[in-house]
Amino acid sequence: MSSNVQQLVEEMAVRARAASRGMAAMSTGQKNRVLLRMAAMLTERKSEIQQENAKDLEAARAKGLSAAMIDRLTLSDKVIAGMVAGLEEVAALPDPVGEISRMVQRPSGIVVGRMRVPLGVVAMIYESRPNVTVDAAALCLKAGNAVLLRGGSEAIHSNLALAAVLRRALEAEGGDPDAVGVVSVTDRQAVTVLLQQEEHIDLVIPRGGEGLIRFVAEHSRIPVLKHYKGVCHIFVDASADLDMAERIVLNAKTQRPGVCNALECLLVHRQVASAFVPRVVAALRRAGVEVRGCAETLSLATEAVAASDSDWGCEFLDLVLAVRVVADLDAAMEHIARYGSQHTESIITNDHANAMRFLRQVDASSVMINASTRFSDGGQYGLGAEIGISTTKLHAYGPMGLEELTTRKFVVFGEGQVRS
Amino acid sequence: MSSNVQQLVEEMAVRARAASRGMAAMSTGQKNRVLLRMAAMLTERKSEIQQENAKDLEAARAKGLSAAMIDRLTLSDKVIAGMVAGLEEVAALPDPVGEISRMVQRPSGIVVGRMRVPLGVVAMIYESRPNVTVDAAALCLKAGNAVLLRGGSEAIHSNLALAAVLRRALEAEGGDPDAVGVVSVTDRQAVTVLLQQEEHIDLVIPRGGEGLIRFVAEHSRIPVLKHYKGVCHIFVDASADLDMAERIVLNAKTQRPGVCNALECLLVHRQVASAFVPRVVAALRRAGVEVRGCAETLSLATEAVAASDSDWGCEFLDLVLAVRVVADLDAAMEHIARYGSQHTESIITNDHANAMRFLRQVDASSVMINASTRFSDGGQYGLGAEIGISTTKLHAYGPMGLEELTTRKFVVFGEGQVRS
Repeated sequence: MSSNVQQLVEEMAVRARAASRGMAAMSTGQKNRVLLRMAAMLTERKSEIQQENAKDLEAARAKGLSAAMIDRLTLSDKVIAGMVAGLEEVAALPDPVGEISRMVQRPSGIVVGRMRVPLGVVAMIYESRPNVTVDAAALCLKAGNAVLLRGGSEAIHSNLALAAVLRRALEAEGGDPDAVGVVSVTDRQAVTVLLQQEEHIDLVIPRGGEGLIRFVAEHSRIPVLKHYKGVCHIFVDASADLDMAERIVLNAKTQRPGVCNALECLLVHRQVASAFVPRVVAALRRAGVEVRGCAETLSLATEAVAASDSDWGCEFLDLVLAVRVVADLDAAMEHIARYGSQHTESIITNDHANAMRFLRQVDASSVMINASTRFSDGGQYGLGAEIGISTTKLHAYGPMGLEELTTRKFVVFGEGQVRS
Repeated sequence: MSSNVQQLVEEMAVRARAASRGMAAMSTGQKNRVLLRMAAMLTERKSEIQQENAKDLEAARAKGLSAAMIDRLTLSDKVIAGMVAGLEEVAALPDPVGEISRMVQRPSGIVVGRMRVPLGVVAMIYESRPNVTVDAAALCLKAGNAVLLRGGSEAIHSNLALAAVLRRALEAEGGDPDAVGVVSVTDRQAVTVLLQQEEHIDLVIPRGGEGLIRFVAEHSRIPVLKHYKGVCHIFVDASADLDMAERIVLNAKTQRPGVCNALECLLVHRQVASAFVPRVVAALRRAGVEVRGCAETLSLATEAVAASDSDWGCEFLDLVLAVRVVADLDAAMEHIARYGSQHTESIITNDHANAMRFLRQVDASSVMINASTRFSDGGQYGLGAEIGISTTKLHAYGPMGLEELTTRKFVVFGEGQVRS
């Protein structure tokens, strides 16, 4: 078994590497035809896919998975229509590959530029949602890459059925079906082997819980783009428009509390604490939010409960908010440096100097002035679809779109120059 | 000992992380004053530095190190003058930090851009040359980073003396001396501990032999930018100007054969093999190059010796060249895909379509048309000084300058927008 898994995963990686060369050479038109053919075939073969999905759902019920898990696993007509729309959207996005930027002529006479090229082979490691299979494949292929997909064991029949359709569509348009591979072995050893294929895989993107992501980060010899969690702060400065601050805090906390760009901790400048804390806590309570406050917050708002040390830096992903009164901008930035997760941090202020200091000095992948943290998203930023988000700084920092699935190589146009 | 090393290295990393915040907030003027103060102090304290260097040289002689090794280790007046000039050059380079690019207003009304910011803490792991201590520190600091330096044990006194000067100069200009740290523990365990500090270090750059680089790549939890070797090819196409081809091949092989962008393998289109192989082999032989050829090469040039299988893909770093006759452009690109090291590949051709196919499809960090592979260099490309070269595709692909020591975060300018 062990050596079989090793061999199977290695062979998949080798085949993906070979297929990636064909993908890199595909024209934009051909890549778009592949994506649209995939969309058409998903619609045509919907009932086949749903039959395979039913096997996963049956197994999930037998295992007693939660209703929420089963919901995420279900390939309803609406979910499949969403995948089809996603493929069509990605086909409509501009192709980043081939752009040459910064062409300059050097004193030697050579002309040097940087050409955007595909990364090669991207491995996606994710948990239960089978729609990631289609969404991730679409973005990887559009950027000229081959993709290896390793979803959760509970979605294996669904993922294999979806990938079979994607592979047939690739073949039908003259592509190499091995540009989309699903790792069919569901035990974790397959992931470990996958993460050692640094000769054949260029990038790993894990998506799921912190446990999965830490496992990938610890075992990978391949570069990993990841974020563990989103502990987003808003700092309400002394000069803030308090109506605006309340509106933004409510939106950032309650508009969709279970996502990584939702607000988890509110910091309030002491000068406006007595004016702002009572009203914002009351508004939050009305919206069903549990407020866990520092001692000063408690003294200003009796509806708050006492925060414990573990509430600072905590990703609640729920209608819970930590609130702390701080002495000034520096204290707010110190709190963020200590407890933040380099995801998204926002200041509410009317003081230009403070806004610019916060913008420059806060180390996070998104830093905002007078806006809700919920805007931290590839679609909202105009990247088109989003393949994930990175809170590590190498290669990409923040939401990642098509461009982040490419790299740039140097191209040199000479006329016989030699180095002296 | 073991737990002492662990503690010492961890503490250095924590201090570097703290110092990196001060570095990130420094103005361009202040960073330049630090660099120029370093240059001045290196000159002032030259004799102290040379006294410490003498200890390393004595130990090297006692250990029987080669003359070449001792030469690399020696901090002669000329080497120190080179470091001083390097610091002055880096001070004169434009500061990449703070640039905001691609500002766009989104339909929601928020304005989104990308701000170039320092990476944070960069660790350099290198071998004998103590000048790397100064050159690498200069680039890391100019890009607003803190730097941890871990040179070879044989240069430890020199590295500590150089770093002491750099730290004093930082302090004299109001900076935090911990922005430059030298790991003084010389056994390899210190490197292993360093490579686990993913919370405190953002990037590792190893420079040295393939053994060191593989050790770093295998043990690091921190992203690594590296290249193992440079196996550069030139393909002489059927339409090549053969005078130009000969000139470029000679330059690429002989101008400085011991470096990673020197030519290691020449591929010749069969249509011009009988016209080109005899003359280029004769010219190479006159220049003292040993030519190891395929069977067809041997049949055309009696001065060549037979290549063995291990000569394809070999980095000779010497006056040795592998030569192979290939059927066409596709065969040349297949050879490069199989044996290349993603460093630098060049085509000599007058056929525009072939030139563009080679440029697009060859997967290497530098791809050239009608130019010597020796141009693959940060200075030649106009990047200013070079911190290293990357043949992995994440973050940087090719020569790395100041910009590659930074990343980009998203900045959002709002006026109270919330997400609907």
